[in-house]
Amino acid sequence: MTYRKKLIVVGGSAAGPKAAAKARRIDYHADIVILQKDPDLSMASCGYPYYVGGYFDDRNMLLCTPTGVTRDPLFYLNAKGIEARTSTEVTAIDRKNKSVSCTNLVTGKTETLAYDRLVIATGSVPKMPPIPGTNLDGVTTLQSMRDADFLRRVRDEGKIKKAVVIGGGLIGIETCEALQLAGIDITVIELLPQLLTFLDWELAKLVENHVRSKSANVITDNGIVEFLGKDGKLTGVKLQNGAELECELAVVAIGVVPNVRLAKGAGLKIGERGGIEVNEYMQTSDENIYAVGDCVESLNRITGKKVLAPYGDLANLQGRVAGENAAAGNSAVFPGTIQTGICKVFDFAAGSTGLSETVANKLDYRDIITVINASPDKPGFMEGKLLVTKLVADRKSGKVLGAQCVGPGNVSKQIAQWAMAIQGNLSVEDVINADLPYAPPFSLAIDHFIATAHIMQNKMKGRMKGLSVVQVKKKLENRETPFILDTRGPDEYEEMRLGIGEALIPLGALRKRLNELPEDKEREIICFCKISLRGYEAALVLEANGWKNVKVMEGGIMAWPYPREK
Amino acid sequence: MTYRKKLIVVGGSAAGPKAAAKARRIDYHADIVILQKDPDLSMASCGYPYYVGGYFDDRNMLLCTPTGVTRDPLFYLNAKGIEARTSTEVTAIDRKNKSVSCTNLVTGKTETLAYDRLVIATGSVPKMPPIPGTNLDGVTTLQSMRDADFLRRVRDEGKIKKAVVIGGGLIGIETCEALQLAGIDITVIELLPQLLTFLDWELAKLVENHVRSKSANVITDNGIVEFLGKDGKLTGVKLQNGAELECELAVVAIGVVPNVRLAKGAGLKIGERGGIEVNEYMQTSDENIYAVGDCVESLNRITGKKVLAPYGDLANLQGRVAGENAAAGNSAVFPGTIQTGICKVFDFAAGSTGLSETVANKLDYRDIITVINASPDKPGFMEGKLLVTKLVADRKSGKVLGAQCVGPGNVSKQIAQWAMAIQGNLSVEDVINADLPYAPPFSLAIDHFIATAHIMQNKMKGRMKGLSVVQVKKKLENRETPFILDTRGPDEYEEMRLGIGEALIPLGALRKRLNELPEDKEREIICFCKISLRGYEAALVLEANGWKNVKVMEGGIMAWPYPREK
Repeated sequence: MTYRKKLIVVGGSAAGPKAAAKARRIDYHADIVILQKDPDLSMASCGYPYYVGGYFDDRNMLLCTPTGVTRDPLFYLNAKGIEARTSTEVTAIDRKNKSVSCTNLVTGKTETLAYDRLVIATGSVPKMPPIPGTNLDGVTTLQSMRDADFLRRVRDEGKIKKAVVIGGGLIGIETCEALQLAGIDITVIELLPQLLTFLDWELAKLVENHVRSKSANVITDNGIVEFLGKDGKLTGVKLQNGAELECELAVVAIGVVPNVRLAKGAGLKIGERGGIEVNEYMQTSDENIYAVGDCVESLNRITGKKVLAPYGDLANLQGRVAGENAAAGNSAVFPGTIQTGICKVFDFAAGSTGLSETVANKLDYRDIITVINASPDKPGFMEGKLLVTKLVADRKSGKVLGAQCVGPGNVSKQIAQWAMAIQGNLSVEDVINADLPYAPPFSLAIDHFIATAHIMQNKMKGRMKGLSVVQVKKKLENRETPFILDTRGPDEYEEMRLGIGEALIPLGALRKRLNELPEDKEREIICFCKISLRGYEAALVLEANGWKNVKVMEGGIMAWPYPREK
Repeated sequence: MTYRKKLIVVGGSAAGPKAAAKARRIDYHADIVILQKDPDLSMASCGYPYYVGGYFDDRNMLLCTPTGVTRDPLFYLNAKGIEARTSTEVTAIDRKNKSVSCTNLVTGKTETLAYDRLVIATGSVPKMPPIPGTNLDGVTTLQSMRDADFLRRVRDEGKIKKAVVIGGGLIGIETCEALQLAGIDITVIELLPQLLTFLDWELAKLVENHVRSKSANVITDNGIVEFLGKDGKLTGVKLQNGAELECELAVVAIGVVPNVRLAKGAGLKIGERGGIEVNEYMQTSDENIYAVGDCVESLNRITGKKVLAPYGDLANLQGRVAGENAAAGNSAVFPGTIQTGICKVFDFAAGSTGLSETVANKLDYRDIITVINASPDKPGFMEGKLLVTKLVADRKSGKVLGAQCVGPGNVSKQIAQWAMAIQGNLSVEDVINADLPYAPPFSLAIDHFIATAHIMQNKMKGRMKGLSVVQVKKKLENRETPFILDTRGPDEYEEMRLGIGEALIPLGALRKRLNELPEDKEREIICFCKISLRGYEAALVLEANGWKNVKVMEGGIMAWPYPREK
């Protein structure tokens, strides 16, 4: 009889079960055990906000296979041949003797289990601000099934009227939407100057404007210093600026930290970012121990640096790699992440892949070039919806470094396209003539993705001198006096306008009204329209007629995140 | 005064105006003239079926800029500085004297115009079958604005009860949907054994089943031999098999041929596929003449062979390249096509990029490997919809050669991802750990695209021995007697089943019911479930227990295009 390899997986949420399942498929005869601290297994935790928000009502859908079978220990045993123990906490790893100690949290029984290979998938724990009042009733996170149950009850009972979300990141924004849909008066409080820090400021501001349009309040540049309470119950929060906000519920979503207690206790190497250090095989500093998911550090494929990337999709992919390697020896490789992410925000989506301008600058990328494109995802006659994309590239090589996209349009497809371009190591020139699936129900003849590359090419070749909305705003604040030219039609102007001192000359009339332009051919002129396509054409007309300092405000009014006159 | 370059563009639909507009942006001072035979300019011709189908009612949306300005000669003059002459047919090119002869179709006036650079964008003409009756009232195509107007009138008047569409390609299917939405009893007649020949048969059959489910009739493997009429009006069609079908309307959509009359007359080189021959600069055999759009042959980037690719997106991209080169000298390059396409089919979409298995075989690709994956695009709790993808790769290198996808799910994103993978020259291994935008409203944690690559990897590594539904069906027709194992639950079986002699043993019970499997360990066993994930796991259980010839039916019941028992 052949030896049955003993494989233990610590953690039963996403990465752990995936590792166990993949190991089983590779090695039918191994003894595979999942040890899970929570009472549930394989929870679709990314779905919690949608359960809370009422997108669906059947809690079981978070715990079931697509055909409705609960992923409980019996399911794992029968369908996968895997022993899954829930409510079982691993308290220590004995690397010398290759065993783990665990405690059944229900019975209190402790046990020692031997392993040949161990996979650590202990996930992450939500950060809590080190301030008074965190243990008041009504202060919660949205990290566990229990949290989801609690917040869903809040929705169903309809008693709570006011809530705050602490933190304007991905989970904070998803929670904000969920609570707003539950009819709760909601305020998002963010310490930093913007929501969703995977976006650059100007795109994040467009998202913030959309959140506000849904009657959710947003406070940025302000943290909380205290949870206020009475009789053990939350009654409000106090902000850094001294203001107090009444609320009966506070959801803390200021991020997560890798749960490395167990790994640290076993003396495994922890990286600089606080996650377990692993190589490309997802192997820790102990060759018999693998680690996957939120608890590890991942390689950023663009920068070559280690990052924390607590995403559900990466957890699954890493689990698959570690499962194969733990079962069959190192053969599968996890190449790392380009930190692709996306978030639903009411009728918007906001996504990003690769580097933002902010991150690129922080990492000392010396010569990057950015551009913003605003245009619909489909033709108007097919009810196209707006997309605003910011593209970041290396100026010299033209290599695509990152892209962000927000708006009501099909953001997910845009980001997927950029993610594949980055993973294919493509440059802006490489995607100029991309061959993508076109038909009016799905895209414009020149897809927004390609149009973005075209505008970037125009900018890189010096054909378009672009300014971001932030640069234009700064000029105005610095009391510079560029001549600002709105090239839209009078009807459009009546309907919506910036009111920043712009002159209105429709593109179609421009050639005949050049006399209305500044006499001084050196004077800075900034052209725009709704999305700045006509703005660009106007700039070319002016340059051809002798004006020397003509710029285009990228993305036009659709990218303008500041208040408008109209 | 500098010399003003004379640039003439023949054709004013998609590629022509794009070339003219790009040339204008590059060279402000050039004389740019568009000569357009039709009365309209820049028609959104891909939108015709949606206008006919009533997705929108304002005809003008096909002819307007997004802000509602009609793209007529006045618009071109004022906004673009381009002279556009409509109803003007170019009758000849005099290459020696660098001039074109044209006739105003309204006034009859003829004229000769000199050019420095010429761009030919004469498009394509619809094929007509060489059979009697094509000039009967009621026989039409859907190629021009006039056709669209005629068919829209058919919709609005509601008099016509029965119609046929000749040809089950992209436009045929779009037209079928449009007429069905108009309440017309519709039959699609296709000469070949399948609809949508950019798909392999088994995926096309799924689309056909969907079309039929919408009460549209489909006849394949049968052409028409005569349009029947009375008093000059269409009354029916006669098929190859002798059958006659009553109808008052017949839309012919059997494809298009490049309109090369003008180019041929001028002695320009015509390629083997019947399109104008151009180099990577979109330059014809005459260095002063460029050609773009449906009238040219394009390079297939995968095969290196010339193909006809009459797609609106390529027309625009080629126009941009030719416009730049005609204005500034050859600098921009069009790299070719990977023949990416997509089509809306009622609640389905059907898309393809790269090579299908059929095309790869025709081109003598010797060692390809294919796999079919059926799974939803999003989690069940976010109302995920089915996608069925067929992936084609080179077996040795693993390079992705092509992908097709059909179903009610987000096909467009899947095809876009594969298109970018092909353009990045990626292999299956390269996309195994792709980092894509994941959140439950947008995808599964392991996106359908990645899951497809995983299954292909399993197959390439010999972990899964897959059979296509076609191979399984063939075995049954050949009276082979594999043991067929449905691994779903009894409830699922009651609801839907193949009825091809399968035994039902749910995966969860399989380990205990191995005694129900064939005693002969050499007997072929074919496992499946709804999508064949459980089928795959069952196959691994059987192999581990000594069965030597275990296969998985790829895509499971969701990929089964044949009639089912239930």
